[in-house]
Amino acid sequence: MSTSIFESEIYEQPDVLSRFLKESLDRVREIAKHLQKHEPKFVLVAARGTSDNAAIYAKYLISAYLRIPVGLAIPSLYTLYHQPPLMRQTLVIGISQSGASPDVLAVMEEARNQKSPTLAILNRLDAPMAKHADLIIPLGCGEERAVAASKTHTAQLLSIASLVALWAESPTMIEELNPVPDYLRFVLSSPDQVRAIAEQIKDHNRILVVGRGFTHCTTHEIALKIKELSYVSADPYSAADFMHGPIALVEEGFPLIAIAPKGKTVNSMKELVNEVDRIGAETIVISNDEELINTHSKAIPLPRDLPEWLAPIVAVVPGQLLALFLTLARGNDPDQPRRLKKVTKTL
Amino acid sequence: MSTSIFESEIYEQPDVLSRFLKESLDRVREIAKHLQKHEPKFVLVAARGTSDNAAIYAKYLISAYLRIPVGLAIPSLYTLYHQPPLMRQTLVIGISQSGASPDVLAVMEEARNQKSPTLAILNRLDAPMAKHADLIIPLGCGEERAVAASKTHTAQLLSIASLVALWAESPTMIEELNPVPDYLRFVLSSPDQVRAIAEQIKDHNRILVVGRGFTHCTTHEIALKIKELSYVSADPYSAADFMHGPIALVEEGFPLIAIAPKGKTVNSMKELVNEVDRIGAETIVISNDEELINTHSKAIPLPRDLPEWLAPIVAVVPGQLLALFLTLARGNDPDQPRRLKKVTKTL
Repeated sequence: MSTSIFESEIYEQPDVLSRFLKESLDRVREIAKHLQKHEPKFVLVAARGTSDNAAIYAKYLISAYLRIPVGLAIPSLYTLYHQPPLMRQTLVIGISQSGASPDVLAVMEEARNQKSPTLAILNRLDAPMAKHADLIIPLGCGEERAVAASKTHTAQLLSIASLVALWAESPTMIEELNPVPDYLRFVLSSPDQVRAIAEQIKDHNRILVVGRGFTHCTTHEIALKIKELSYVSADPYSAADFMHGPIALVEEGFPLIAIAPKGKTVNSMKELVNEVDRIGAETIVISNDEELINTHSKAIPLPRDLPEWLAPIVAVVPGQLLALFLTLARGNDPDQPRRLKKVTKTL
Repeated sequence: MSTSIFESEIYEQPDVLSRFLKESLDRVREIAKHLQKHEPKFVLVAARGTSDNAAIYAKYLISAYLRIPVGLAIPSLYTLYHQPPLMRQTLVIGISQSGASPDVLAVMEEARNQKSPTLAILNRLDAPMAKHADLIIPLGCGEERAVAASKTHTAQLLSIASLVALWAESPTMIEELNPVPDYLRFVLSSPDQVRAIAEQIKDHNRILVVGRGFTHCTTHEIALKIKELSYVSADPYSAADFMHGPIALVEEGFPLIAIAPKGKTVNSMKELVNEVDRIGAETIVISNDEELINTHSKAIPLPRDLPEWLAPIVAVVPGQLLALFLTLARGNDPDQPRRLKKVTKTL
C-alpha cells in the first residue's frame, strides 16, 4: 500500500515504540540508576541533523525534570579548533542514527579521554560510537532504509523521555509512557486531512513552523523534513523568538504551521495564532485544544489526553506526513532526496 | 547622507567600538578578575532575538578559550513551566539591548534567587535588568533608535571578546582587540559592491546563509536582519548541519551567502562552496581567503589580517549592509519593519 520506504517507516513507528517500551525499559532503568548515583552537574549533548533535534528535546526535559543545566556540544571545537571545553562533572550524551558521524564521535572520544561519563543513544549496538560510550541505549528500530529519518527519531525521543522519567523516579511520568504508541496510532489513522492540506499549500516555496517550550524540537524536526524532502524553505521558530523579528515575514496567504498542544504554553501559542490569523496567514494548527481545532479549517488533531511533556514524540508525526505528502504533491520522490546520503561524514 | 536611521547606526559602529575599547576595558578587566576568582564550572547565557546571536558567540568563545561548557538558557522553563534548572557553580549571563526583556529578566532573577553569580551585558546602566546583576558590562552605544539592532550587536560581540581575552589573560588576544574598529572601517568603506549584489538578488524570496565554527553566530544574525527588514526568507546554517539536509534546497540560481574567514574552518567552507557552485547556486562569499575572493564575482572582502576568533564582529557588518540594500531595493523602509517593536515583551 505504501508509496515509498519513507511512508512505510512512518507507519512502523507505533510498533517500534511499543517494542522499545517492552524490551528496553529495564536497560534504561539500570542506566538511570547509574546516573542517579553519579549525579552529573551538567549535561552536554552531541548530535547532528535529525538527531540534533532529539538533542533539543533532551535539553528541555533534563533541564526541567532533573533540573540539570544542559548545553548542546559544539563539534567544531573538537574536530577543527582542537579547543574542547573541560567536561568535569559533566555527562556527555551522543545521539546518532548511524552511530558513525565523525564529529559526534570526536566529542564522545574527548569526553572519554577526560574521564567524563558518556551515554550513547544508538539504533544498533555494533555502531562505531558504541566503543566510546560507558552506557548505551539501543533503540532497536531495525534498519532505517529511507534517507530521511522517521522511526529512529521518534525512538530517540521516547528513549530520552523514558530515561528522564526513570531517572526522576516519577511514577506519573513512567505511567504516562505506556499509551505513547497508541497516540501515534491516533495521529496516523487519518492521513487524508494532512494530504488535503499538503495539496492546498504545495505551490508555496516557503513555510514557517512555530512552537513553544517542549515542542521547540518539533518545529526544528518538521522544518528539516520539509526542507530535505520537498525543497520548500521551512523555517522553525520558538513563538518567543518569532515575535523578535521573523513575524515580519508573514503576509496574507503565507503558510504557517502552529504546533500547539494543550499545556502551559498553549495560551502563548494562541496569542501568536490570533496575530498571524489577523494578518491573513494560511495557518495550519497541530493541536488538541478544542478552540484552536474548531476555529481552523486546516487543523490536525492530537490525542485529547496527550501529556504536554510527551507532545513532541506525537506531534512530529503529522509533520512527517505533511513532508511526505508535500513532496509527492510537488512531484518529487521522498526516497530520493537530491544530494543527501544516509550517513553524513562532516568533521 | 544616510537614507535611514538604520544606515546611520551601521556607520556609527567603528566609533562605538573605539569608545568601548577606550572607556570600558578597565571595567571588563575587573569583572574578569572577579570571575577568575569565582571559577564557575558552567555558564548559561540568556537572551532573545539579536542578543541571542551574541549569546551564540559567547558560547563558542567561552567554551574554546576558557574551556568552560556553556548552555543557552531556556526562558520558558522559568516563565511558563516554572521548572528552572539548578544553577550551582554556574555563571548566568544575560544579554539584552533594552535590558527589559521579561523572559531574560526571569532567568536572571531565578539565578539571583539561587545565589548563582550573574553578569548582565546592557547598553544602559539604568536598564531594569541591572538590578538582577552582580556584574554589569555597559556597552555605552548611546540610544539605538532603529528597530533593527546594529551597533548594540557589534558592541555586545566586542564586550564578549574583551571579557574572554581578559579572563583568559591572553596578551595576544588582548592586543588583537585594538584594530577591531579599523576592521569595521574597512568593511564599511566600499558599500557599492554590496549594493550591487543586493540589486542582483533582490527578486529572490529565499536565501541561505552558511558559516562554520565561530561564525555560526554571524549566519544567524545576518539571516535575522535580512528576514526582519527585507522579508526574504533567510535560513542560517552551520556548514556541517547543512550537509545533513538543507543542501537539498539548493538549485541553480539559489542565492547563498558563505561566510568564510581564513582560519581553521576555511577548508570546510571551501568544500561547501565548491559543492554549491557545482550545483549552480548564486554564491556570495564574505571572506579574506584570496582564492575564494578571486574565483567569485559576488565577493565581499574582509580585512586580510583579521584573526578568526574576531571574525564575527567584522563579518556581520557586510550582512547588515546587504540587509539594508536588499530592503531598499525591494522598496521597503528599513526603519519601519512591519509588525516589529524595539522592545519585545514575550514571556
